[in-house]
Amino acid sequence: MIFRERTDVGEAKRMFLAGINSIDRTEVLPSRSAIGRVLSASILAPRNVPHYRRSAMDGFAVRSVDLIGASPTNPVMLQISDEIMEGTCTPVNTGDYVPDDADAVLMMEDTISIGDMIEIRAQVHPGKNVGEIGEDVRKNEIIFNKSHILRPCDIAVLASLGISEVKVYSKPVVAIIPTGNDLLPLPGSEEPAPGKTLDINSLMIGEYVEKWGGSARYCDIVPEDANLIEEAIKANLDTDMIVVSGGTSVGDRDFVPAVVEKLGRKLVHGVGLSPGKPTALGIVENVPVLCMPGYPAAGLVALFAFGKPALRKSGNIPDIPDTTVKATLSGKILSREGYVSYARVILEGNIAHPLMTAGAGILSSIAKSDGFVIIPENVEGCEERSEVDVVLIE
Amino acid sequence: MIFRERTDVGEAKRMFLAGINSIDRTEVLPSRSAIGRVLSASILAPRNVPHYRRSAMDGFAVRSVDLIGASPTNPVMLQISDEIMEGTCTPVNTGDYVPDDADAVLMMEDTISIGDMIEIRAQVHPGKNVGEIGEDVRKNEIIFNKSHILRPCDIAVLASLGISEVKVYSKPVVAIIPTGNDLLPLPGSEEPAPGKTLDINSLMIGEYVEKWGGSARYCDIVPEDANLIEEAIKANLDTDMIVVSGGTSVGDRDFVPAVVEKLGRKLVHGVGLSPGKPTALGIVENVPVLCMPGYPAAGLVALFAFGKPALRKSGNIPDIPDTTVKATLSGKILSREGYVSYARVILEGNIAHPLMTAGAGILSSIAKSDGFVIIPENVEGCEERSEVDVVLIE
Repeated sequence: MIFRERTDVGEAKRMFLAGINSIDRTEVLPSRSAIGRVLSASILAPRNVPHYRRSAMDGFAVRSVDLIGASPTNPVMLQISDEIMEGTCTPVNTGDYVPDDADAVLMMEDTISIGDMIEIRAQVHPGKNVGEIGEDVRKNEIIFNKSHILRPCDIAVLASLGISEVKVYSKPVVAIIPTGNDLLPLPGSEEPAPGKTLDINSLMIGEYVEKWGGSARYCDIVPEDANLIEEAIKANLDTDMIVVSGGTSVGDRDFVPAVVEKLGRKLVHGVGLSPGKPTALGIVENVPVLCMPGYPAAGLVALFAFGKPALRKSGNIPDIPDTTVKATLSGKILSREGYVSYARVILEGNIAHPLMTAGAGILSSIAKSDGFVIIPENVEGCEERSEVDVVLIE
Repeated sequence: MIFRERTDVGEAKRMFLAGINSIDRTEVLPSRSAIGRVLSASILAPRNVPHYRRSAMDGFAVRSVDLIGASPTNPVMLQISDEIMEGTCTPVNTGDYVPDDADAVLMMEDTISIGDMIEIRAQVHPGKNVGEIGEDVRKNEIIFNKSHILRPCDIAVLASLGISEVKVYSKPVVAIIPTGNDLLPLPGSEEPAPGKTLDINSLMIGEYVEKWGGSARYCDIVPEDANLIEEAIKANLDTDMIVVSGGTSVGDRDFVPAVVEKLGRKLVHGVGLSPGKPTALGIVENVPVLCMPGYPAAGLVALFAFGKPALRKSGNIPDIPDTTVKATLSGKILSREGYVSYARVILEGNIAHPLMTAGAGILSSIAKSDGFVIIPENVEGCEERSEVDVVLIE
């Protein structure tokens, strides 16, 4: 496939993201259902945590003033009592309410019980082992900032504040439009007739969209007809992003980018990405349109390189770094200058074995591999035994 | 809190994991519901992909023998036909069935159409642009190994093979037992009375258990009574792991490790972990028991350090590296020699700001922080401006 145009991956991504508006739709969810979601507004603490003066130790609540001068040679004796006054102390457990007139808690281990008296051999400073009101969270402080992604530990903090509902950004809706004359919808437990192919790309795209925080809208397979593609794109302009799979390579049937150009702005057709060169990017009525090659491996790489950051921008989802591992290559990887190459590798401990069958059409090359070695466009492959970063395929 | 015992974190983890048997219960799930699950058996391909000789290009199917000697000065003319025979060629699109008698496909771009004739100026080798049967996946080859975690791209491969169900390991069931006399169950939208604390640890533990691939069983709050704790542990010995929250520090009420010792084997009580020192680990009737400090931040660190690897071993879940980012410290971090310290930091670009309020009781120190700088026991803190790895809090 020969393209007159071949845009640098970084530049193509910048152009695409620049055309994407982050959504401002929000929804209110029970806190517990909001793990992984993005806060659309900061959350203020409605109360103090702790909401009472809390003992941090098992021991005795005391007035520190009573212990001034206490030492091993000059121990102070305090009377155990339910009430704190001069010369008394009250037993408390960790987490207990510290009586108002006490200003410190002595650790059990630092005391000697003699009947109903407690012998103390050291001074204590005011506030010792007392968790003050609001020490953990102060009422009205910002506890979570806007755009924070809620984690399980955050849900626990919300629960401790009695916050049962949170406002989050709605998930970006992504329409998935498969194109092809010989595509068959899933499921396909019977082997399709020769020349027919199962539409597995929609499933793959949709599951990644959901994984990355979007909501997938699965569309019917559209035959290779510019008018029908146009109709399908128009019918999905109520979404936040459209992914069209197939119909991007240069040939007599490669009309999807042309349809995008007709309906809106075609930003890029042909990128320095391997596999994934025939990718096209555009914006139609403010809706970003990613036209992915129909070859599953090429499509998947295009989805990772462009679809994921686009979805994140659309959904106000902060960038999370990919999970990577360092490994040593067991063989040489070849790449093409001018192309960002996603080379597939199998990990075995800290050895990365390059996969040989790396054609764009070979989906199993991705399924069999653990990760990508992403080789920049200005580098010509990686030598055997070189150390590489492997981005795990999530 | 003073412990006579203080086991090294690595050693404690090894002892705990050595006592854990990986579960062998399995279940059969629809492939699509099995994303993130662990295969309990290898999967063989029930058919070839592609299951027919597939054109890799838009162009013309040819017999390569007809083009021997073709060159710009000696072009070969082929007749367009539905049938492949000497001197003919058949138009094919990408993905089309390649007629049996053709052995190569010429790219459209390498041909010149003249009426119903095609002019060709180059030789072509047999097999060119033809995807052979089984090129992607060969029938009966192992397509996924036992213990593989299914990803969205894998689900697509399964769909392409017509595999609609898969056998996976059952999720390990983790019983969560909160202990404390002054604990109140959630939800708690009303501020609890002074001295009372909401049981947020159960929620936090349970949500992480689910996130890491387990199934949480929430138990009622158990008062601080050795007999009742014993009953609660015995009642949950049908699970794969028990996490007891609270009642681990040394004091007159710290009976949970003692109960574990009575019922089975107490491996460790007191670890070189900060926060999280009072953690205890044991095995009761082959069920691993993690006794976490009740302080939320300390409990969470213990859960990350011991609960996560234990759950993974129990559930046959391969180890996935933590997501980390490199950052420069904006301030010094102090740590205690002999303790693995989980210092909490806020990330701002590639600057990591140490959180000052880092007490074990301060849950908000975790909620407010983006990650941990994990400082080994033989290192005394980190200097300002040093480069550190920040493990993101998931």
